[in-house]
Amino acid sequence: MDSFAIGVDLGATTVKSGIVDRTGNVLEQVTVDTKAAEGPATVIRQILRTTTELLSRHGKEKCAGLGIGSPGVVNLDSDTVSYPPNFAGWADVKLATAIAREYSFPVRVENDANAAALAEANYGAGKDHRDFLFVIWGTGIGGGVILDKKIFHGASGGAGEIGHVTIDYNGPDCNCGNRGCVESYIGQHYLSGRTKDLLRRMPKNSPPSKILQLVEGDLEKIEPFIISRAAEQGDATARQILKEAGALLGVALASALNILDLNIAVIGGGISAAPQFVFEAISDSIRSRVLEAHRPNVKVLRATLGNKAGIIGAASLVL
Amino acid sequence: MDSFAIGVDLGATTVKSGIVDRTGNVLEQVTVDTKAAEGPATVIRQILRTTTELLSRHGKEKCAGLGIGSPGVVNLDSDTVSYPPNFAGWADVKLATAIAREYSFPVRVENDANAAALAEANYGAGKDHRDFLFVIWGTGIGGGVILDKKIFHGASGGAGEIGHVTIDYNGPDCNCGNRGCVESYIGQHYLSGRTKDLLRRMPKNSPPSKILQLVEGDLEKIEPFIISRAAEQGDATARQILKEAGALLGVALASALNILDLNIAVIGGGISAAPQFVFEAISDSIRSRVLEAHRPNVKVLRATLGNKAGIIGAASLVL
Repeated sequence: MDSFAIGVDLGATTVKSGIVDRTGNVLEQVTVDTKAAEGPATVIRQILRTTTELLSRHGKEKCAGLGIGSPGVVNLDSDTVSYPPNFAGWADVKLATAIAREYSFPVRVENDANAAALAEANYGAGKDHRDFLFVIWGTGIGGGVILDKKIFHGASGGAGEIGHVTIDYNGPDCNCGNRGCVESYIGQHYLSGRTKDLLRRMPKNSPPSKILQLVEGDLEKIEPFIISRAAEQGDATARQILKEAGALLGVALASALNILDLNIAVIGGGISAAPQFVFEAISDSIRSRVLEAHRPNVKVLRATLGNKAGIIGAASLVL
Repeated sequence: MDSFAIGVDLGATTVKSGIVDRTGNVLEQVTVDTKAAEGPATVIRQILRTTTELLSRHGKEKCAGLGIGSPGVVNLDSDTVSYPPNFAGWADVKLATAIAREYSFPVRVENDANAAALAEANYGAGKDHRDFLFVIWGTGIGGGVILDKKIFHGASGGAGEIGHVTIDYNGPDCNCGNRGCVESYIGQHYLSGRTKDLLRRMPKNSPPSKILQLVEGDLEKIEPFIISRAAEQGDATARQILKEAGALLGVALASALNILDLNIAVIGGGISAAPQFVFEAISDSIRSRVLEAHRPNVKVLRATLGNKAGIIGAASLVL
């Protein structure tokens, strides 16, 4: 009788793998370098290092299967991973097939944002909801769509690109080639820049910002988690920036909820540790913009699985 | 052996019903007043008048079923229609159940935009495509999503509200309560207003606009089909307005295609008769904005079934 699955959270810098039981608990976790610069064969070897180690202690015969959450485009075959960013020499790789060669249990691959969405659907903030939009707000803005408790893939597996919803067609340039995407307003790069601007423009005689204390005066060290921490400590500038950013995310989410006919957004990524007022800013913005039919049911929830969502979601692909 | 179905296109002013064969041809069509002001019982009677008449000539025993495309929110039960705009005394009505009482064949109801999308998927511009976004560009901007040749309903049946995708969060007020929705830029009301503005601002000595000739000098008579006709005749102002409008629709479509993971948009409604340059403006705008993975595959197609799409799509619910 199988009693657990392995979840692999494949990132450009580390491979995090864990033994996950049927209630979504991570019983043990190991982490190794991805060595993404050395090409697919090395990355596959690194993944197998973690799984071999875990299975040596927990027993192959009890393993229901192995799931991988991967960056890049994951084909609908749950196998092929195409062009993950920052992975050298990686075009199209049949990753599940490569790992499955070593084992007799099933192996499936899913896009990492979708895997995290599935984890929240089964064990996290989305547990009590059949349908919701999952948002990862970190360096960039990613997402996944859960419909009827399953991942909604769209036509080819790439649905849920909430970061590249336009909120102003004359807005700033975005990395994707468009302008005015919500990511170009609230991604890490913009948030840090906006914070620096505001701090530089503060009158000399105003009380010192908590943000400056946290980075010891070095503006180049400003990151979203610093802004978030300063906001927690009551810093006015930090609060203003996160409130604005939440309202802007709400603009994009209202468009997405209208198109997908959803009412609920679960927000994960680095910002999921932010103070409650950020979630309220997102929610107020959505409610003021979304179609009337959705308004009474709009909910913005904080993801609850943190950085374990990747491992848990990957495992739940086979549980 | 059944050989046809009845399709009913229920509108606030007329009920259009037709006999549709298995190749999507409308063999005969009848139209009556909806009498929407007299309440649901009268509307149901009006629908039955059309179907009784059609069946008297084509034979009940050959009818595979009856489909209705209805405004308002159509529940996932394919039966209940809620609050269709401009229908008096209509809260929630089990429309399919009411019609089915009279017949032994199956009766199903679908949202009218979704029905038209399905018609284009089976017999029109989308015939060769499994997945696309259908857009109705008329008084307002509506839409439907076809995935794997079926209607994608979202969580409760309302997916595809492309008209209420924000393209500028500081944009003009929209009827829906939001601001900067694409509908507030390119819906009939705005297009007519923008045209009047441009005509009023034209220098006195410029050549007379074709638009003014078509409305015999009465600015209040300007409607999108007039602008479209003037553009066909080479009028510069009309061309400028439709080109701008096409580019703005492209902004909203790029967001929607990114979220839904689609490459193709089929454009129906009044504008589907517009000159080709409008479709090129939409397509250029999408291609300059959508995520790179979609760019090579973006296609903007003109709907081909015109105002018969409603009847054909409704019939295809049961064919």
